[in-house]
Amino acid sequence: MKKEPYPLGKVYGLLEPGPVVLLSTRGESGANVMTMSWHMMMEFEPPLVGCIVSNRNFTFEILRETKECVINIPTAEIAKKVVACGNVSGRKVHKFEKYHLTVEPAASVKAPLINECYVNLECRVVDTRMVESYCMFILEVVKAWIDPSQKWPRTLHHRGMGEFMVAGKRMKRPSEMK
Amino acid sequence: MKKEPYPLGKVYGLLEPGPVVLLSTRGESGANVMTMSWHMMMEFEPPLVGCIVSNRNFTFEILRETKECVINIPTAEIAKKVVACGNVSGRKVHKFEKYHLTVEPAASVKAPLINECYVNLECRVVDTRMVESYCMFILEVVKAWIDPSQKWPRTLHHRGMGEFMVAGKRMKRPSEMK
Repeated sequence: MKKEPYPLGKVYGLLEPGPVVLLSTRGESGANVMTMSWHMMMEFEPPLVGCIVSNRNFTFEILRETKECVINIPTAEIAKKVVACGNVSGRKVHKFEKYHLTVEPAASVKAPLINECYVNLECRVVDTRMVESYCMFILEVVKAWIDPSQKWPRTLHHRGMGEFMVAGKRMKRPSEMK
Repeated sequence: MKKEPYPLGKVYGLLEPGPVVLLSTRGESGANVMTMSWHMMMEFEPPLVGCIVSNRNFTFEILRETKECVINIPTAEIAKKVVACGNVSGRKVHKFEKYHLTVEPAASVKAPLINECYVNLECRVVDTRMVESYCMFILEVVKAWIDPSQKWPRTLHHRGMGEFMVAGKRMKRPSEMK
């Protein structure tokens, strides 16, 4: 996919509907990726994102050490790969190779972008105070990319135990909310 | 809607797909409600939920004082009311009366359940350490209710600036993820 930069102030609209995301990192053993649904927006601009990464996950160690990652938003077209990435640990498998995900260099972090995802958000860890209690990292999005040809992306939303909801119809409501 | 109790260990599947929720509270001035999309699961059981409530919102004061609330999950059928609740402050308007939302007593907290929502999660604030920095409250769900007749609820998912996505098709993928 061909991407272009996306304004940081509009990033919240990509994450607050709750898509499953692929969190990519780069540690000493190379690029790794995990599937994640436990994330939320915390601030509009600069965009802050809270997320939970279990300390049983390989990503936890890499994230704590490198303090960098990329949030990649996939669509239903690659649902199989998204689920596969959540079913195995990067300690055992090089997931990018095994699941044929294409690594691209980021502009501001060492963690890789995933080409097959329509959004890539380059992030730095800015607050680790809640890591010990809840495995919660607070990320700042420092650079955002989007494939502008995706007008109404079919994002995936996990409803537990391998059951997903695919983004449905558009509904416009006059709102004063941001 | 007629509700029945729902197992606390299954609550995560209701919130991780990112639905817009109505957060109800009860302060000295009575019942209040706000619209919220910035929330995430933090633990399976007991279910912990992180959420951001701006300190400009009336709910912020009530939540900090009473340490109790209910997360109500609406569906597209009441989208107009959901948006209306997000466009006005409870300082000015009694939203339950104005928008004809039906208050029901909760089992474990003073904050009210909203009858028109298919899920009600009674919550207590269990951690306020991130309130000062990020207006982030950590809630424990102490009692959960669901309308069992809603097999595939058309939840609302905000994509920014009054544009919503309505929950679409179901997709099942063999997964070892919880």
